[in-house]
Amino acid sequence: MQIKEYQKIITEIYSNIKNVEDIGKVANYIPELGSVSADNFGIHITKINNETFGIGNFEEKFSIQSISKILTLALAYKLEGEKLWQRVDVEPSGNPFNSLQQLESDNGIPRNPFINAGAIVVCDVLISHLENPKEEFLAFCRELSNNATLNYSEKVAKSEKNTGFRNVALCNFIKSFGNIKNNVDKVLDFYFYICSLEMSCKELSKIFLFLADNNFKTHKEKRVITKSQVKRINAIMLTCGFYDESGEFAFRVGLSGKSGVGGGIVAIHPNGFCIAVWSPKLNKKGNSYKGMLFLEHFTTKTACSIF
Amino acid sequence: MQIKEYQKIITEIYSNIKNVEDIGKVANYIPELGSVSADNFGIHITKINNETFGIGNFEEKFSIQSISKILTLALAYKLEGEKLWQRVDVEPSGNPFNSLQQLESDNGIPRNPFINAGAIVVCDVLISHLENPKEEFLAFCRELSNNATLNYSEKVAKSEKNTGFRNVALCNFIKSFGNIKNNVDKVLDFYFYICSLEMSCKELSKIFLFLADNNFKTHKEKRVITKSQVKRINAIMLTCGFYDESGEFAFRVGLSGKSGVGGGIVAIHPNGFCIAVWSPKLNKKGNSYKGMLFLEHFTTKTACSIF
Amino acid sequence: MQIKEYQKIITEIYSNIKNVEDIGKVANYIPELGSVSADNFGIHITKINNETFGIGNFEEKFSIQSISKILTLALAYKLEGEKLWQRVDVEPSGNPFNSLQQLESDNGIPRNPFINAGAIVVCDVLISHLENPKEEFLAFCRELSNNATLNYSEKVAKSEKNTGFRNVALCNFIKSFGNIKNNVDKVLDFYFYICSLEMSCKELSKIFLFLADNNFKTHKEKRVITKSQVKRINAIMLTCGFYDESGEFAFRVGLSGKSGVGGGIVAIHPNGFCIAVWSPKLNKKGNSYKGMLFLEHFTTKTACSIF
Amino acid sequence: MQIKEYQKIITEIYSNIKNVEDIGKVANYIPELGSVSADNFGIHITKINNETFGIGNFEEKFSIQSISKILTLALAYKLEGEKLWQRVDVEPSGNPFNSLQQLESDNGIPRNPFINAGAIVVCDVLISHLENPKEEFLAFCRELSNNATLNYSEKVAKSEKNTGFRNVALCNFIKSFGNIKNNVDKVLDFYFYICSLEMSCKELSKIFLFLADNNFKTHKEKRVITKSQVKRINAIMLTCGFYDESGEFAFRVGLSGKSGVGGGIVAIHPNGFCIAVWSPKLNKKGNSYKGMLFLEHFTTKTACSIF
Repeated sequence: MQIKEYQKIITEIYSNIKNVEDIGKVANYIPELGSVSADNFGIHITKINNETFGIGNFEEKFSIQSISKILTLALAYKLEGEKLWQRVDVEPSGNPFNSLQQLESDNGIPRNPFINAGAIVVCDVLISHLENPKEEFLAFCRELSNNATLNYSEKVAKSEKNTGFRNVALCNFIKSFGNIKNNVDKVLDFYFYICSLEMSCKELSKIFLFLADNNFKTHKEKRVITKSQVKRINAIMLTCGFYDESGEFAFRVGLSGKSGVGGGIVAIHPNGFCIAVWSPKLNKKGNSYKGMLFLEHFTTKTACSIF
Repeated sequence: MQIKEYQKIITEIYSNIKNVEDIGKVANYIPELGSVSADNFGIHITKINNETFGIGNFEEKFSIQSISKILTLALAYKLEGEKLWQRVDVEPSGNPFNSLQQLESDNGIPRNPFINAGAIVVCDVLISHLENPKEEFLAFCRELSNNATLNYSEKVAKSEKNTGFRNVALCNFIKSFGNIKNNVDKVLDFYFYICSLEMSCKELSKIFLFLADNNFKTHKEKRVITKSQVKRINAIMLTCGFYDESGEFAFRVGLSGKSGVGGGIVAIHPNGFCIAVWSPKLNKKGNSYKGMLFLEHFTTKTACSIF
Repeated sequence: MQIKEYQKIITEIYSNIKNVEDIGKVANYIPELGSVSADNFGIHITKINNETFGIGNFEEKFSIQSISKILTLALAYKLEGEKLWQRVDVEPSGNPFNSLQQLESDNGIPRNPFINAGAIVVCDVLISHLENPKEEFLAFCRELSNNATLNYSEKVAKSEKNTGFRNVALCNFIKSFGNIKNNVDKVLDFYFYICSLEMSCKELSKIFLFLADNNFKTHKEKRVITKSQVKRINAIMLTCGFYDESGEFAFRVGLSGKSGVGGGIVAIHPNGFCIAVWSPKLNKKGNSYKGMLFLEHFTTKTACSIF
Repeated sequence: MQIKEYQKIITEIYSNIKNVEDIGKVANYIPELGSVSADNFGIHITKINNETFGIGNFEEKFSIQSISKILTLALAYKLEGEKLWQRVDVEPSGNPFNSLQQLESDNGIPRNPFINAGAIVVCDVLISHLENPKEEFLAFCRELSNNATLNYSEKVAKSEKNTGFRNVALCNFIKSFGNIKNNVDKVLDFYFYICSLEMSCKELSKIFLFLADNNFKTHKEKRVITKSQVKRINAIMLTCGFYDESGEFAFRVGLSGKSGVGGGIVAIHPNGFCIAVWSPKLNKKGNSYKGMLFLEHFTTKTACSIF
């Protein structure tokens, strides 16, 4: 489909949904997230041929939160290879994102890398590989997106650190099963920074092009991960990208995607495009209400579901 | 891809896997399944242009068991429309196929139509719509596949009836939440018959063409379900088709699919083909060991994953 | 303590509690229970020296429901001996009375004989021992209480049969683990009759004297169970007699006891007395609201807690 | 019963059990516990009239571990009164001692003060009341037992600190529900010290006399807690003192008691005596194998069960 056609469809759906009553709620478990204006609504699409289109608040940066879990996964998969799956599984959890109970029966192996427990283990894997995890991970993101302005939000990271008792619980619980190899405080510090990454829809739809384009190379002409790894990450996004609403997203939208409690969602059309949506109010399962609604209409109108 | 190319790839993988040691076990919870020869190994592909290729025991009928849950779902979705999802959800369960515990916290709404609990609710929906459920459902299957020889196995159905205490438990448990509307014995009798359907790989890859071909019509020139419904069933198959190994199948194979404890697996490539594999020995999660192995190699070699 | 002293204390507490607002609700999951007048309030104490005192509706018969589980346990323990505990455990469940989920992790061994699952297994044990279970069990009760008028309520038993889907689920679920040896319908029919037994507070406080009096013999001069068995049943009543409120009852009342959803409670003071209370409105955990309140005041005033 | 009679019975059972093969295992989750000689076996009884008798290694100090949870509970109950039960429940958990999953459904309110979660909340309550929690709690213990030599083991406390990831997880998890009011590190430090208390059987049977003797006063002539509070603590010990083996202890032994993973058990006979047993090898539920065996024989021979 031509970018003009996408532009037309996106603009139309954007207008319709902008005025829909938003029954969601802005995440407020850390003050920094709660202070964002609930009215923000932005969309940006980037095709693999680099044509782009954006509408609304698509250039405003926000806290991408769990969307960053794709980036840590990609780097850990690149560095650790298939051995990674001995430490974290690839199954949907059927439980909320920060649940501890499944870990108990699964002996400390998180169900997938997109629930908090799994992302914490992935951070632990990265720490074992990297000398300066925060710096090197940021460098990886900047190269991926050819964007030297990408950065963490110290404020969000610190806020998370002061209130993230459940993540501290998760990390110590996994450590008690032996599936965290490094110091718990170090792992959590890294994890909280990862989650504090800030990007706009425009930046998001660009950085995740490597999952849409099988032949993707960075501006330094480097492949990021293998074709097989790309497909596998897309598969995990489809089955596990939306916590206990992953089935609903596959059912209604039909694309691999990942949400964050900052209200962002990215979705991938293999060999087509990457699209990012942002609207801060979340439904009960913790996913952007208008974001999901937009993407449902979008795949219906463009018939671009992978199914 | 041309059928000749598929033929070459399938033949090669078939030869390699045929002699691999099979670490699975034939299901023996009902005697009729346990008596099947473990050596059976068959594959059959049907493209949407009706080109076909089969190898091994692809013409031998076997008990398709849970694969039939796609067919009851399709008919119930056709008859009930989107209201169906008030009675059954579309989320992966993260639990074994016959688990009762999730039903307790979910107030009798099964997680998806492919775990036993969900399929039983779907049967209940069908009974509310059909005068002679067994006959009319069989007629639906026969029309779908243009194959008047399709039939239930009375022997398997009765065997299941005598030993299926957990399914009786499931059905009564759901009834206690009010999510079974008809008589429990009637619902279970229908459910046990459904599971006893027998087909060969050849027949399976044909009957499920309606999920691969968006423009599918039966030999009577009737559409079965809408395009949107096709996509949605494919989405549920991807996220929920292999019980608590659904993520693994998406990860390794990358196609929508559904397994049965008889050792069969069907997989769908949208606008491409339907492929069926049969090998009776099951891995620990209840899915055909060689069937999964074959399909993993198959999508790798043909690069036909949807991701 | 003399019966006159008990009489004074009971009368006083009775008067105080009679007019307390009852925040409980009459059980209505079967119509026969729902139709009982919520105002009923009766108490009866029987000392081991056969002195007695009653007040309020202490001579009115009501559905003793789960209180009958002590009687089936006593008879099964007598007939089966310590082997009984291979079929049912003696641990508090920490879960509601009709939960299925624990059975799943415990492989079909119910946590204790006082949750429904455990009582159903006990019924199964009795059926294996008795030729005419209903008749012989009733004869056992009549001899225990020297009261030929004791009887089942056909109406309640049938009502339970028509609506007890969860108990049907429990029984089939346990059968699927092999821990029900007889026909499921037969076991459930017996179980529903057991639960339908009707007694007054007066009759209850007499029939359970065998748990209060170590030297108890029936009017036919027969011992019922051994001293050790009496103590052990009292222990199970203390740890498991009030579902997931057992700890609360031990904490507040400090006696072995057992409640039923008909609003009855019996409590035992070893070598002292048996007391029965009846008030139909139940608290959220399914135990008589005023019954528990009365007993708390009673053990406080009489200082007769076992602790 | 006279102390001479107890002496005879204890000596006899001690001799018999000493040579029984011990199928338990010494706890080794912290090195300091693992290094204790498995052959230790000591018993000491103290009657409320201060007559005593000991046999075996009854004067050797060991890590009392969870037995200390009774002491923290007693002090917190004294200081906080009935409000305490808004922070921790009094129900048996039906789960292992360090389980997190129940906390999730119970919103951070631990089931009882004797599972780790509950004891951690009790420590938090104490910290809110005490200026120097470690010193003041130790002073409380010393006054209770009139024994200035009682002390923590720094080595055990530090070892616990370095390896107690699951307790760190528990404390942070409860904090995430708002049921820990103080700094997590402070609470855990206190908790680890509490668990490291060391006493001999002789000292244990003396310090817990306040639960056996309704009229107990310390050597400074002070009452510790009210009679009602004594009874209630005894009730909780009976229903919750042995983790998910509490029912079994009530069933086989019939006394209120509490075990620790150091292999100690104390048991209370109201208005009779306190008895302490020590044997380091634990059964699968984490309770001293020989300790439970001894107490079962002891209450059988002395007929001193409370039931």
